[in-house]
Amino acid sequence: MIIIVTGVSGSGKTTIGSLLSKRTRLPFFDADDFHPSSNIEKMTQGIPLTDHDRAPWLENLANHILEWEKEGGAILACSALRENYRQTLQVSQNIHWIHLYGEKGILEERLNNRKDHYMNPGLLDSQLATWEEPEYGLHLNVAGTPEELGSSIIKYLKNFDMKSKIGIIGMGVMGKSLALNFISNTIGTSVYNRTVQGKEEKIASTFAEENLDLNLRGYDDLGEFLQSLESPKKILLMIPAGSAIDQQLDQLSGFLEKGDIVIDGGNSFYEDSNRRVSEMQEKGIHYLAMGVSGGEEGALKGPSLMPGGNKEAFEQVEDYLKSIAAKDKNGNACMTYVGPEGSGHFIKMVHNSIEYGEMQAIAEVVHLLRFGLRLNPSEISRIMRNWLNDGLQSYLLEITADILAVKEGEEYLLDLILDAAGQKGTGGWSLITALNHHVPYSPLAEAVTARQLSSQKTKRSELSKLFNHSFRAFGEDKVILMERVKNAYMLCRIINHETGYSLMKEVSDKYSWNLNFSEISRIWTNGCIIRSGLMEELVEVYQETDSLLRHKKFISKVKELKKDLTYIIGLGLSHDFALPVFSASANYLLGRIIENSSANLIQAQRDYFGAHTYQRKNDASGAFYHTDWQKAKEQSNPNSQNKPPSS
Amino acid sequence: MIIIVTGVSGSGKTTIGSLLSKRTRLPFFDADDFHPSSNIEKMTQGIPLTDHDRAPWLENLANHILEWEKEGGAILACSALRENYRQTLQVSQNIHWIHLYGEKGILEERLNNRKDHYMNPGLLDSQLATWEEPEYGLHLNVAGTPEELGSSIIKYLKNFDMKSKIGIIGMGVMGKSLALNFISNTIGTSVYNRTVQGKEEKIASTFAEENLDLNLRGYDDLGEFLQSLESPKKILLMIPAGSAIDQQLDQLSGFLEKGDIVIDGGNSFYEDSNRRVSEMQEKGIHYLAMGVSGGEEGALKGPSLMPGGNKEAFEQVEDYLKSIAAKDKNGNACMTYVGPEGSGHFIKMVHNSIEYGEMQAIAEVVHLLRFGLRLNPSEISRIMRNWLNDGLQSYLLEITADILAVKEGEEYLLDLILDAAGQKGTGGWSLITALNHHVPYSPLAEAVTARQLSSQKTKRSELSKLFNHSFRAFGEDKVILMERVKNAYMLCRIINHETGYSLMKEVSDKYSWNLNFSEISRIWTNGCIIRSGLMEELVEVYQETDSLLRHKKFISKVKELKKDLTYIIGLGLSHDFALPVFSASANYLLGRIIENSSANLIQAQRDYFGAHTYQRKNDASGAFYHTDWQKAKEQSNPNSQNKPPSS
Repeated sequence: MIIIVTGVSGSGKTTIGSLLSKRTRLPFFDADDFHPSSNIEKMTQGIPLTDHDRAPWLENLANHILEWEKEGGAILACSALRENYRQTLQVSQNIHWIHLYGEKGILEERLNNRKDHYMNPGLLDSQLATWEEPEYGLHLNVAGTPEELGSSIIKYLKNFDMKSKIGIIGMGVMGKSLALNFISNTIGTSVYNRTVQGKEEKIASTFAEENLDLNLRGYDDLGEFLQSLESPKKILLMIPAGSAIDQQLDQLSGFLEKGDIVIDGGNSFYEDSNRRVSEMQEKGIHYLAMGVSGGEEGALKGPSLMPGGNKEAFEQVEDYLKSIAAKDKNGNACMTYVGPEGSGHFIKMVHNSIEYGEMQAIAEVVHLLRFGLRLNPSEISRIMRNWLNDGLQSYLLEITADILAVKEGEEYLLDLILDAAGQKGTGGWSLITALNHHVPYSPLAEAVTARQLSSQKTKRSELSKLFNHSFRAFGEDKVILMERVKNAYMLCRIINHETGYSLMKEVSDKYSWNLNFSEISRIWTNGCIIRSGLMEELVEVYQETDSLLRHKKFISKVKELKKDLTYIIGLGLSHDFALPVFSASANYLLGRIIENSSANLIQAQRDYFGAHTYQRKNDASGAFYHTDWQKAKEQSNPNSQNKPPSS
Repeated sequence: MIIIVTGVSGSGKTTIGSLLSKRTRLPFFDADDFHPSSNIEKMTQGIPLTDHDRAPWLENLANHILEWEKEGGAILACSALRENYRQTLQVSQNIHWIHLYGEKGILEERLNNRKDHYMNPGLLDSQLATWEEPEYGLHLNVAGTPEELGSSIIKYLKNFDMKSKIGIIGMGVMGKSLALNFISNTIGTSVYNRTVQGKEEKIASTFAEENLDLNLRGYDDLGEFLQSLESPKKILLMIPAGSAIDQQLDQLSGFLEKGDIVIDGGNSFYEDSNRRVSEMQEKGIHYLAMGVSGGEEGALKGPSLMPGGNKEAFEQVEDYLKSIAAKDKNGNACMTYVGPEGSGHFIKMVHNSIEYGEMQAIAEVVHLLRFGLRLNPSEISRIMRNWLNDGLQSYLLEITADILAVKEGEEYLLDLILDAAGQKGTGGWSLITALNHHVPYSPLAEAVTARQLSSQKTKRSELSKLFNHSFRAFGEDKVILMERVKNAYMLCRIINHETGYSLMKEVSDKYSWNLNFSEISRIWTNGCIIRSGLMEELVEVYQETDSLLRHKKFISKVKELKKDLTYIIGLGLSHDFALPVFSASANYLLGRIIENSSANLIQAQRDYFGAHTYQRKNDASGAFYHTDWQKAKEQSNPNSQNKPPSS
């Protein structure tokens, strides 16, 4: 789209042109900057230009217009007083003319107020005389404010049948932020929100008015919204997970045509997404189930995007998603095609479950440092900032350092916050998924448990009194302990990631999704909540192995850190600190690296009371055995039972 | 039912009568024991009795027969050679006659082989001459073995249209054991098993033949099975949980009438049972969802029974269930009406989840004692036997002591068992239920995780080498450590029960089931797998409180044991022992008794990145706050961040 703003001197072409540039994201050019040097010389000397002088300049502009059109459009401020000048510039169907006019008095006043350049007042009369009123384009009286004029122009331009590239349904925080992100990347976007009488009314149209932009079109009517989209339609759902999605899909299905694309950008449960991808496929509709991480800020400035589902559809929206996503350290978008079915939502769920573990581990660190080492929050904040530069870079640690520094009057804001943690679905879903796929995920189980316990505030207060609970400070050297806590946390973080990735590996194998864990790590290095220095390392690690615990570098790291983690757990528990994720991480690690576990006893017990049978270490056939244990006990040498324990 | 076995001397009336007594569970009487003293005197002197002598004796027997009938029946051996003797005894419709006859040679041989009493051989001729062949009853040639004769009699008696009190569908280990338990309590039982060509054929009829008993009737045809049941029919399903139950109910529904009773005695998921109770209710069928615990032995000798659902139906089967259930220390049945809907299956599920925690905790104890204290299994077995008498009585500990003592040649059988633990549904179901109801249940989560990790045997072996894992023995005094391990385990057991009961409390409240935890504890004091001394205590405790942690006695016990649990965790982890349930128990405890948890940080983090808002400790209104943390950080006094940490 080329927009040419015409008018005599003082009509405000530059002001309006610049404003339009903001609202359309198109570059702004001033025609005067394209004069050949001979013309500039004449003008400097106050010699009026002839049409002969103007001819090469207009030709040059016409050529530029063709170039700009190829590059996506531009805004040109050009007096273009005569019809033949304008005809020279009319080199494309895609030119929109905005003609500014006004009363002479106003124009004169404006010219006189200009401080930066002098203009011969007689010139205005000459220009007004030269002006040949065109019969096309938008004629605007410059009496209004620039904002009013800008709005009128945007509304005028929107009347031309421009179709949006993408449509967003659902104007919650995330939907709005993503819409703003799309338009800031000059991707034409239509937005729609349902109407709920008395609660949600005119949300989309109001949003579009408040964020006036050529690329943004707001609709309160679903039909009009759909009409405004390019074909095949690309519709991004940003509405709550669950039945709302199915209802929306039902409502949409009457309007959609084969080949249209629906993207669910919410936190849907991946098994629902598996189902929807195939249900929609049967109707000929392409369905993408896309994880989006980064919160409000990420959605606005660059989220991590995890689209999965129909690959053909992905290819049609790939460029748009690339544009709005965060960028990794090499400048590549934190966005990739994750895999088929609901795999995008699946990895988003796992992302969140890793987030759960990280948050709880940091909370444990803060308690240890504060009440075990008796450091105040500001001191802990400072220590954590040091850690960020010492092998522990992470967004969550960073915001923790920020949080710890915040005071309200003399008090730390943290101390005023009720210690009852909320949770949405993803933590529990991940646990249930892990259970269903027999994947150990105990650090998450403990993180979820910790939130559950936290929400029992009243009961905790009561029991705290009954048990006289209080933290007891550690007597040891603070500097050494700080280092051990840091190491313990570092190992905890490694284990927490290992468990999450193990769940992804198992489910990927089960569904034959063939997930690429290096690539998943890469798109999690920026934009998302669990971005960290460790995540940068994982990009490399998962090119070589599918388990952190099998990677040489991590094996030695884990070995090195293990004694600090177990030491801190022992110290903390015995001083009445709850360290659930620290403990679960240590137990998970020890449970995975043990050759002979204690489960042989459990098998014996199950066989004893329930005849569940057992297998034998020395029978590779995997045959099942049953023992009559009571009989076997009686037959065993009784002497062996009568020896006293050696001590 | 009165069975009278007739025949001349040597026909084997006593042998057959005694055998029938076993197969029918009816008492056996010998008519000769009822002669008046005058008759006995005559017989001792070898003087033949006259019919006049016999008259009072036969009258006396007739009176006894009427008594016996009231008491449930009897078997009487009586020569009853003449029809008029028999008519004197024929005082009820409910008398079955078994007439034994045989060749004289055989009878003589038998009489001559009798060592215990002498008989005049001439008497046989006289008796054979006296015998008046009756036209009714079963005539049996005594040439067969007693077993053959017994079978023929039982089959003959079953032809009379006796209806069974209860029918069992499903002849797995549990179904069979329960059937034997019912018949050993003289409760007429029909059994049925489906036919699967080439796999399951004639299972029920074979079982009934192998366990020949008047009270047991086996059918391979569902219609015949149902025909054999008293009305209203009482049908106990002992088939696998899941869709098999629904299929069976579908199949049955055509045959059932209003008021019939179906009992699901399997391990169905309680939410399925909730649904089935109401679905069946709509059809007018009473449905009981009954938990059964105790394994094969319990089912046979006395299980703990947890029926829930339709109460009216319960009352109709109450006596039968009482008869077969285990007895508590006061002799009351370990059986109670649990509550409405699927509450019976629900508490069975929780029972099993407590079992999971107990088993894993014991497994951790065994590893600590064996590899940390370097005790051999026999020594540990002995120590555990001491513990049983020292405050830790429990079935699971008891069988562990047995298991540890079992050797195969020079090796402990335990060491030959593959350390990969299996699991069925109940552990995972309980966890998912706890998640859905926001109930912390971390010891179970860790017990389930431990089983999952154990099943990754190959991976563990590989990692064990990469990490050079080995247990390191403890250097401290063994006697003291043993005591600390015992205390740690004792606390672990308390916490494990507290978590399970908390889940029951929450779900009971949600569903308004009004579960009686004292009564539930009582029916778990015997018959079931988690029976223990602690369970005996809980019967009292839950009369006073709904949480162990609020009970005075347990508060002081927990306080006292806490330092040993946390000490042993620190010691164990730092010596490379995985102690997942020990650790989860300690963390759960500390998480519940803490006044101010670390969750305020989690709320701050959630508000920082996701604008999830938080509540304030000093705002009782529960209002939600949001902070712009980046801004707040900048506004906070920067000086407070620059102080060095005190050390």
